[in-house]
Amino acid sequence: MQLYTFWRSQAAFRVRIALTLKGLEPEMLYVDLIKGEQAAPLYRKLNPAMLLPALVDGAGPPLVQSLAIIEYLEEVYPNPPLLPEHPRDRAHVRALAHTVAIDAHPFVVPRVRNYLKREFHADESSEKRWLQHWLDTALGVVEGMLSEDARTGQFCFGDAPSLADVCLIPHVTSALMLYSPNFDAYPTVKRIFGGCMQLREFVEAHPRNQTDAPANSGT
Amino acid sequence: MQLYTFWRSQAAFRVRIALTLKGLEPEMLYVDLIKGEQAAPLYRKLNPAMLLPALVDGAGPPLVQSLAIIEYLEEVYPNPPLLPEHPRDRAHVRALAHTVAIDAHPFVVPRVRNYLKREFHADESSEKRWLQHWLDTALGVVEGMLSEDARTGQFCFGDAPSLADVCLIPHVTSALMLYSPNFDAYPTVKRIFGGCMQLREFVEAHPRNQTDAPANSGT
Repeated sequence: MQLYTFWRSQAAFRVRIALTLKGLEPEMLYVDLIKGEQAAPLYRKLNPAMLLPALVDGAGPPLVQSLAIIEYLEEVYPNPPLLPEHPRDRAHVRALAHTVAIDAHPFVVPRVRNYLKREFHADESSEKRWLQHWLDTALGVVEGMLSEDARTGQFCFGDAPSLADVCLIPHVTSALMLYSPNFDAYPTVKRIFGGCMQLREFVEAHPRNQTDAPANSGT
Repeated sequence: MQLYTFWRSQAAFRVRIALTLKGLEPEMLYVDLIKGEQAAPLYRKLNPAMLLPALVDGAGPPLVQSLAIIEYLEEVYPNPPLLPEHPRDRAHVRALAHTVAIDAHPFVVPRVRNYLKREFHADESSEKRWLQHWLDTALGVVEGMLSEDARTGQFCFGDAPSLADVCLIPHVTSALMLYSPNFDAYPTVKRIFGGCMQLREFVEAHPRNQTDAPANSGT
C-alpha cells in the first residue's frame, strides 16, 4: 500500500489518521504541493486532477478523493470502525465530517488562494480574513451540532474516534497553522481536539511529524 | 418524509434525484435561498448551518449535508442501489461524485459569491470567470476519469444511474444556467448528461420542474 501525501495537506492528514487508526502502514510517497510537484508528469498520470492524496492498494487504479478513500478503507478494513452501526448515526457522523471537509476545506487549499491573489489581487490580510471566515464558520456549525447532541461523547460520536474526528482534527490544525482561532468560542471542539491529540494515532499522522515537514513547521 | 429544498440549489437537486430514483416521494418544503429564508428562525432551528437541503425521515433530528443524506438513503432504502457492490468500484463512483460536489460546487453557492462581491469587489464578469473556472476544471477532470475507465457505460458507472450521475447532472445543469460551457470538450459528460435527461427521474427532479421555480427559469 502506498500513500501519496504532503505534510501540510488537510485531506492527506485525514487519510493518514484513518490509516493509523486502522493499523495500516502504507509506504509514504511525498508530493510537494507548494513546489507544484502535483503537476509533474509522473503524478499527473496517477491522478489527473493533480490533487492529494492518492492511495494505491494492491493491483488496480489509484484511489483518489480523501473522503472516498476513507469510505473504501472502512469497507475493506472495517476494524476498528470509523462509522457507527445505525444509518441515522452514520448520517450524523458524515454530516459533521462534511461540514468541515466540504463547507470549509475547499476554500483554504493553495490553488484557491492562488486564484484569489491572481484574479482578485488579494493581499495577505484579505487572504487571512477569507481563510478565517470559512474555517470559523464551519467551527461554529460543528460546535452547535456537537454541543446540542446527546450522542457527543469523549469524541465527536461516543467514546471512540470516528470519521467526524478524522476530519475535524485536520480542520482545527489548519486553523491553528493559518491564524489564531478563538477556541473559547468552541469549547466542545476544543475538548475533543485535546482528547484526540492525546492519542498516538492522531499524533503520528500530524503534519509536523511527517518526514517531508520542514524542521520549523511549528503549529 | 419531508425535504427542505430550493429549486436552484445544486445540493437539493442531487437529493431530489436520489429520492426519485429510489421511488420516494417526500413532501417538498421550499426555502428561498435568494430571499435569505435559510436564515429565518424556523429553518435555522432545523439546520443551524442555514444550508439546504435537509431531510426529515420519521422521528429523529433532520438529516443534513446532501452527500450524507444520499448515503443514508442508500443504506435505508437500498433499491435500486446508487453505489456498486465492490469497494474499489464504490470508491471510483464516490470519487467521481466528490470531484464535482467537493472540488467545484462549494465555489458557486450564493454565500461565496456574495463574499467575493462584498470583500473582493467582484464584478459580474470576474464572478462569471470564477464560476466557470471551478465548474470547467471539475468537468475536465471528470471527463478524463470517465473517458479512460472501462467501467464507464451508458452512465458514469455501467448501465444504471449511480451516485456519480446524481452529482454530475446537477453540476452540468449549474454550468448551463450560469454560462455556456463548451461541451464539445467533454464528450463523455455530454453523452451521459443527454442520457440521464431522457429519464423521468432526472427530469422530475430538475430545477425548472420544481413548484418553487419562477416561470422564466429557462434551461
